[in-house]
Amino acid sequence: VDRLKRQIGFIVELDKLKTILRQSWLADGSRRENSAEHSWHIAAMALVLAEHANADMDLDLARVVKLLLIHDVVEIDAGDVLVYDIAGNADKAERERRAAERIYGMLPEDQAAELRALWEEFETGETDEARFAAALDRLMPLLHNFLTEGRAWRQHGITADQVLARNAGIAAGSTVLWDYARELIEEAVERGYLLPAAE
Amino acid sequence: VDRLKRQIGFIVELDKLKTILRQSWLADGSRRENSAEHSWHIAAMALVLAEHANADMDLDLARVVKLLLIHDVVEIDAGDVLVYDIAGNADKAERERRAAERIYGMLPEDQAAELRALWEEFETGETDEARFAAALDRLMPLLHNFLTEGRAWRQHGITADQVLARNAGIAAGSTVLWDYARELIEEAVERGYLLPAAE
Repeated sequence: VDRLKRQIGFIVELDKLKTILRQSWLADGSRRENSAEHSWHIAAMALVLAEHANADMDLDLARVVKLLLIHDVVEIDAGDVLVYDIAGNADKAERERRAAERIYGMLPEDQAAELRALWEEFETGETDEARFAAALDRLMPLLHNFLTEGRAWRQHGITADQVLARNAGIAAGSTVLWDYARELIEEAVERGYLLPAAE
Repeated sequence: VDRLKRQIGFIVELDKLKTILRQSWLADGSRRENSAEHSWHIAAMALVLAEHANADMDLDLARVVKLLLIHDVVEIDAGDVLVYDIAGNADKAERERRAAERIYGMLPEDQAAELRALWEEFETGETDEARFAAALDRLMPLLHNFLTEGRAWRQHGITADQVLARNAGIAAGSTVLWDYARELIEEAVERGYLLPAAE
């Protein structure tokens, strides 16, 4: 019973992720996206796009989905930081490590260790599953930016070279999706959603 | 390329689930929950509570997670209906069937068939995975109601016997979680969050 109580405590804590706002706007432009619904969206995305993982990968799709479901939980304590914000990202790793300790630590020990290991796997990005999961996590904000005519990009004065540099890692998970992402970025510049590369 | 375009079209369509409001309120009472973040929450819940599935079940957890990720997508067209609203539920099945056809039909044929079959599996509730998934989908609103002092229950004048009848199916997925749910319901009545059974 104590075990179930701890599990429920963790599940209740997860509710807070619904109040963490990301930089992305919903496709209809009505409001900013929160990290809980984002996590759902990329997990569902994984079910549909798994076939585009690089051919040399031996992908465990269930593991990809797990990584995507839990990768943002640390934001409950550490918040969501704009990926192009260098100052805000300086102590991000340490804040997220403490968050993982506290939040996953609410679970029974075996599960705390398991979910923490999954989170570290995502962060380290050294397995095929982590690389493909990270590719989806990067592709999604590109899509949202494109669909909202570059709303978050324009808001923060982001340029195409920043977006290209930030997202080049998509290729490590899927060259097919990276080709698609580059087309999106190119078209975003053409349509004026995204500033061209700075001089 | 046409295949990827269809998949992306479906993924973009999914964004609309973030605008479908449920009857449940967030645990902090700040606003009603949407169906996308709810789907994330119960999928993450499955990772943590899988061990409580009934002992005679041979559970494929990855399948449970898939069911939970896609089970509410039809609400994009069909909306979320209060489970105690008999009139609103009269043509629900037909509205959801049409929704499944349109939304899953955006995908390439093989994937459309796969996701539609998963949705039907959840709705029919005849596999162990569907029974356990449904148990989580029912337990979560109980938790949210309890945490918000019965906010949605009081709003709609729901009584304990309605809640007991509606949720008895939890036992088919997990008698452990059904015992826990009954304790919650009992305590909710004691605390005045939920009306006792009608005469």
